[in-house]
Amino acid sequence: MSTKKNVLSIFALGGLNEIGKNMYAIEYSNEIVIIDCGNKFPDESLLGIDLIIPDIAYLVENKDKVRALIVTHGHEDHIGGIPFFLKILNVPVYATRFTLGLIELKLKEHKLLRESELVEINSNSNLKFEEMSVSFFKVTHSIPDCLGIVFHTPEGNIVHTGDFKFDLTPANNEHSDIHKMAEIGNEGVLLLLSESTNAERPGLTPSEQMVGEHVETAFMKAERKVIVSTFASNISRVQQVVNAAHKTKRKLALLGRSMVNVVGVAMERGYLIVPDGMLIDPHEINEMAPEKVAILCTGSQGEPLAALSRLSTGNFRGVDILPGDTVIIAAGPIPGNERNVTSVVDNFFALGAKVIYGTGSTSGMHVSGHGYQEDLKLMLTLMKPKYFIPIHGEFRMLHHHRLLAESVGVERGNTFIINNGDVVDIEHNIARQTRKIPVGSTYVDGRDVGTVGEFLLRDRKKLSEDGMLMIILTMSKAEGKLISEPETISRGFVDRDFSEIRRDVNRLTIETVNELQEANRNQWNVMKKQIKKSIRQYIYTQTKKDPMIVPILIEI
Amino acid sequence: MSTKKNVLSIFALGGLNEIGKNMYAIEYSNEIVIIDCGNKFPDESLLGIDLIIPDIAYLVENKDKVRALIVTHGHEDHIGGIPFFLKILNVPVYATRFTLGLIELKLKEHKLLRESELVEINSNSNLKFEEMSVSFFKVTHSIPDCLGIVFHTPEGNIVHTGDFKFDLTPANNEHSDIHKMAEIGNEGVLLLLSESTNAERPGLTPSEQMVGEHVETAFMKAERKVIVSTFASNISRVQQVVNAAHKTKRKLALLGRSMVNVVGVAMERGYLIVPDGMLIDPHEINEMAPEKVAILCTGSQGEPLAALSRLSTGNFRGVDILPGDTVIIAAGPIPGNERNVTSVVDNFFALGAKVIYGTGSTSGMHVSGHGYQEDLKLMLTLMKPKYFIPIHGEFRMLHHHRLLAESVGVERGNTFIINNGDVVDIEHNIARQTRKIPVGSTYVDGRDVGTVGEFLLRDRKKLSEDGMLMIILTMSKAEGKLISEPETISRGFVDRDFSEIRRDVNRLTIETVNELQEANRNQWNVMKKQIKKSIRQYIYTQTKKDPMIVPILIEI
Repeated sequence: MSTKKNVLSIFALGGLNEIGKNMYAIEYSNEIVIIDCGNKFPDESLLGIDLIIPDIAYLVENKDKVRALIVTHGHEDHIGGIPFFLKILNVPVYATRFTLGLIELKLKEHKLLRESELVEINSNSNLKFEEMSVSFFKVTHSIPDCLGIVFHTPEGNIVHTGDFKFDLTPANNEHSDIHKMAEIGNEGVLLLLSESTNAERPGLTPSEQMVGEHVETAFMKAERKVIVSTFASNISRVQQVVNAAHKTKRKLALLGRSMVNVVGVAMERGYLIVPDGMLIDPHEINEMAPEKVAILCTGSQGEPLAALSRLSTGNFRGVDILPGDTVIIAAGPIPGNERNVTSVVDNFFALGAKVIYGTGSTSGMHVSGHGYQEDLKLMLTLMKPKYFIPIHGEFRMLHHHRLLAESVGVERGNTFIINNGDVVDIEHNIARQTRKIPVGSTYVDGRDVGTVGEFLLRDRKKLSEDGMLMIILTMSKAEGKLISEPETISRGFVDRDFSEIRRDVNRLTIETVNELQEANRNQWNVMKKQIKKSIRQYIYTQTKKDPMIVPILIEI
Repeated sequence: MSTKKNVLSIFALGGLNEIGKNMYAIEYSNEIVIIDCGNKFPDESLLGIDLIIPDIAYLVENKDKVRALIVTHGHEDHIGGIPFFLKILNVPVYATRFTLGLIELKLKEHKLLRESELVEINSNSNLKFEEMSVSFFKVTHSIPDCLGIVFHTPEGNIVHTGDFKFDLTPANNEHSDIHKMAEIGNEGVLLLLSESTNAERPGLTPSEQMVGEHVETAFMKAERKVIVSTFASNISRVQQVVNAAHKTKRKLALLGRSMVNVVGVAMERGYLIVPDGMLIDPHEINEMAPEKVAILCTGSQGEPLAALSRLSTGNFRGVDILPGDTVIIAAGPIPGNERNVTSVVDNFFALGAKVIYGTGSTSGMHVSGHGYQEDLKLMLTLMKPKYFIPIHGEFRMLHHHRLLAESVGVERGNTFIINNGDVVDIEHNIARQTRKIPVGSTYVDGRDVGTVGEFLLRDRKKLSEDGMLMIILTMSKAEGKLISEPETISRGFVDRDFSEIRRDVNRLTIETVNELQEANRNQWNVMKKQIKKSIRQYIYTQTKKDPMIVPILIEI
């Protein structure tokens, strides 16, 4: 299972064939360096699951080798798994100033801040490990302070792009380090790992400045309150909202815990400039002239408990949306969230607000932070890698990214489309996909981390669809006979009188017990199976439902 | 509650502030005529619900007045509720030849065909009721044989558009009856009910012919098998696939029950022309040269059990997708289905197929059947209604449709944005929104129609998230004392050894029972409440989960 000496191994513990829980690793001889440790939100099939994080069994098995966790940027799909990771493997965490700010918020929540070793780096930092050294380059993305990473190994240089786009006029002045990228490419890149989110989209990503212009226009046209919802971490967009509010002489209130927290980190660390006296408390909103107020809030994905959704249903205490207010949703819906977002939009329209949101054609209020095809080709062209692993995407994205790589000169056969756990080994400058390490998904369910499996989820699915029916049998231990009528109880099954069903279920149960006892097959597991079978059949014929049937034996 | 004589009333029992379960009604004196009776598919919050249909309590209460159900076209959201409706109110159903074919399929399934009164109509038909008469006009949509309806009432003419777009080059030659619409408009329209699905989209819908051209090109370029998935009912698109197969000398196999059924109806009734000998059985596919075969299948929404999804995972017996095959998804994802569709696309790419599907920019393989803003404005312009009710859409669509109506001359204040159940009464040529009739959603859950309510759904939700914990107490009836240790059983709660939790739960239960008995508060409902409370608290503190707690008393 473990690596040979002098072999360079690259693999992912998350982020391939999925969007979320990014975690990649570079291993050489006795060293493993980790890149990112994200989380992912469960889809509706994972009933009751709070969060999904990478399965780090392999790292735990090789824990003496793990040198560091390097974090490219502060989005949840890159940092959300860190507290769970550090609880098990307390290695130093390297990240930029802003990213560290967000990581610290998380560690505080998990009461882990004190024992964690957090090391601030920037794009000029150099890290030296035993065999590898690491340098960085700046990339532009939809959050401040993002890094690409160069691993200098005895086999050659490995580049990990982080999440990026090229934006020649970024709103925050954080330009991509194109000259440094060109140098890295000239030095020689053995293998490139590059993100694939928008590999299906032709063209070049529009500039974040475009959003700023649209926001400013909307503020200037607005006759009453303006409410803007965006990702709290998109600080350059937040800055543009601040600027528009300043220009139109409005005060600004922040709603939503993550907006308050993240904006706090950004101001404190100098990533966001807010004019003195501009920020007001939410309770002041209703007291001010509506044309003097703007609100910046969370909930751009239509999350039912977030500020935007609560505003839209009149459930945000002390803040009313009134006819003539302007609501701007400055974010695109992440796939799966479309219906939640449109329902929020419907509610705002019903309150008489003007709503600016994305439809078929774009509203101009959002641009992606992930490079389109031309951005990806530019990165590939700058880096000129010999080998290429498209990362950070579902299969079709990785597939399209491979085609892009081939279109700018990466040799056919030198791109590896791999899965989480697949290992690409490089030895004597030749890369091969050979081994597999065990990986999976770790589910967080309340305090249970990693103990919830398919079996329990199947039970929950069954319960969620047709509920359950319990049949309790009381038997005399001495005589092995039923003492009383079975007791039938249901939950989630039917919403009406079911005394007829109950009567039949009881009768069927007694019949089954008697038959088996006469045939001398009165072991409980035999009875249980037979009771389940006959009741299930009966229930399905009667109701076309298939609830979980749970026979319970009480012996007295 | 009931209508006055000589008042014309218009209301919806479904279709307003939602997409789905369309059902509208026109009432005058002693007559009610119903338009459409659709279903709607539940979102993921309605656990275990199979289908949603309109709540027809008002019609049942006024059943002597209900004269007819007129059906505009054969889509599920217009016909899917018919079997449930006819079981309760067996009135004559009027529809065109193709629509009737689809309704008959449904009634056969529900074993209702024999007792139903189905009347074939066409756009030249005239229906006479006691006070109202009804005529029709052809509209173009994404299914054959669609009607708009004119109700001639003593108060004036009411027009219901059905679902429509204007397509001057429809693939099936079924042109909109624009001249007739113009005449109707000239005669005078008191009130227009017009569909709003695409009221947010600027421009005019592209023509269905565009899809045909793209399909043909894809067939010509394909080197091996071609697999096309689309809505079975979109017969003109099916025809274009048939034409492309014919042109490229391919045989065609139909996969999926609804594709086989609906294509059968269309061929039999002359809406689809398939060359003799073109259709083959699915089991012949693997035996033929791949460049001689095409497949037309259901599942364009990524439904996990439909043909397309099963093909993509290699689970369609006897049909293999191989490298070089071309898969065309000739349908747009309905909101909410995006993730299912992209996962199917991923799977096909992983099998080495070429996949043509919609991304940010369109693939050219789908056009909407619902008119965009310019289509809607053209309808409003042709009809020149005094009053307007935008129908068939969520709030923001109705809202935008109102703005469109005002832009082409409908007077401000003459548009009614109403909810299901809101009644617009017209008397002496004046329309007013006054009364409300009771409406809701009727849930179909197995054989239970209308008996499942919020209470049961809440239980299912709770069960789906954290499962349940049952504590069974056995007491002696005579002594009122516990006979044995409580029995604790869980389902869907944790996936690990919970003997510690069980021990504590049993201890807590016994303590609670003893305390209450000592205090002489040993009624079961008091005990039950107290046991629930203390266990819930304990479980939450230990696990951060909140399962359903079910204490059960067995008295011996």
